[in-house]
Amino acid sequence: MSDPNRIWTAGLVIIGDEILSGRTHDKNIPQVASWLQVQGIRLAEVRVVPDVQERIVEAVNELRARNDYLFTTGGIGPTHDDITVDAIAAALGVDVEIHPEAHAILEAYYADKGGLNEGRLRMARAPAGATLIPNRRSGAPGLRVENLFIMAGVPSITAGMLDALTGQLEGGAPLISETVGGFIPESEVASLLRDVEKAHENCQIGSYPFFREGRVGANFVIRSTDADALASCMRKLCEGLSDLGYDFTPGGI
Amino acid sequence: MSDPNRIWTAGLVIIGDEILSGRTHDKNIPQVASWLQVQGIRLAEVRVVPDVQERIVEAVNELRARNDYLFTTGGIGPTHDDITVDAIAAALGVDVEIHPEAHAILEAYYADKGGLNEGRLRMARAPAGATLIPNRRSGAPGLRVENLFIMAGVPSITAGMLDALTGQLEGGAPLISETVGGFIPESEVASLLRDVEKAHENCQIGSYPFFREGRVGANFVIRSTDADALASCMRKLCEGLSDLGYDFTPGGI
Repeated sequence: MSDPNRIWTAGLVIIGDEILSGRTHDKNIPQVASWLQVQGIRLAEVRVVPDVQERIVEAVNELRARNDYLFTTGGIGPTHDDITVDAIAAALGVDVEIHPEAHAILEAYYADKGGLNEGRLRMARAPAGATLIPNRRSGAPGLRVENLFIMAGVPSITAGMLDALTGQLEGGAPLISETVGGFIPESEVASLLRDVEKAHENCQIGSYPFFREGRVGANFVIRSTDADALASCMRKLCEGLSDLGYDFTPGGI
Repeated sequence: MSDPNRIWTAGLVIIGDEILSGRTHDKNIPQVASWLQVQGIRLAEVRVVPDVQERIVEAVNELRARNDYLFTTGGIGPTHDDITVDAIAAALGVDVEIHPEAHAILEAYYADKGGLNEGRLRMARAPAGATLIPNRRSGAPGLRVENLFIMAGVPSITAGMLDALTGQLEGGAPLISETVGGFIPESEVASLLRDVEKAHENCQIGSYPFFREGRVGANFVIRSTDADALASCMRKLCEGLSDLGYDFTPGGI
């Protein structure tokens, strides 16, 4: 029997010079993170690495060794800088092959768009042993090899691939959360947060300050896999804020 | 004499459960990346790690060993989950001390806001040997220790700290770039991109596809530290796109 309290984790490797140059603003970290939460899997670490094979291999091997799952985004298109498949095959110590099913999908997709060429054929390449992650948007599929999921970098395509994987991965109890916020300087309630967290060992409280309308404030997020502990922790935190004379808004502001 | 072709690099460690949970969308990667480009420093890797001391220590020590500079964002506020200073002191093997200058700044800042308390005093703590990075926005300073820069997580405060560091760090020739884009399927020009890149050894060409208005397209970004090579590479790429019959827009679309 599997342990109901087991925490399942995933690593994420974002592959792309365009993120490291600041040109492209990553949208896949929050998207993958939120999706994993719903699957009952915790995102344990993210690494953003350049389009350099040895750097991809290192990040993939380190993060897949210490997590249940490893996701990558980026670098699976048709151009010369798309080296993710080669890097992951190298990381796993397997060959790169033309995947017959991917080849058939791409052949059909490009039938009325000029047919397959060298670049498009690149997108049929896969580490040996891979299965496909469907991509309804643009033909070229993502790939699954062992506990490793190779996805596109364009966020709308990544979204479709995550959608195709929904419910397919074993996870634990989803991490649930409650938020309460207000124009409350976090530096005035730091002791309260610490004490309430200490009194609820299955809960973590995060404090996320902001500046808005010229005033400081914060949202306090309680996370737990235990609904009862979460409710009790939320109640105690709100009581504490009330005792200190603060206005606050459940759900956060 | 220093080598004019030396490439200076930086690592970035983003500290915070809120990024890994998907709750907060990171804005510091593009901000730090763009700022570094202007300083002539290349962002070589980013890691996003949770509020767990051993994970912060590991990321900091690995990335500072292999880069000229290491930046961190997040975890320097007044609450119990702000453990960056302790983690970095542990990574460096130094003590945590109350920094007298930071203490004086915070005392003055909070003089008309209820004075220093336990939480606020946390923000005067620093690894031994640290100097301050000014923060005009909210009092609590960032910290510099050796080649390590400890900055806030709130993007507007991070921006002010980067501003204070502008021109302070030694870098190399800035990486410059040219972009050309159009409703051009990257899979139709993959060979052109590869050939033009090969003919210009000081240039890298990145291809960034998009879906817009129901059509596929891409921006092609050429990066180099050599202005002449960049101009020549851009000219050849535009000629090639023209020869293939594509409309394109210098500057990208």
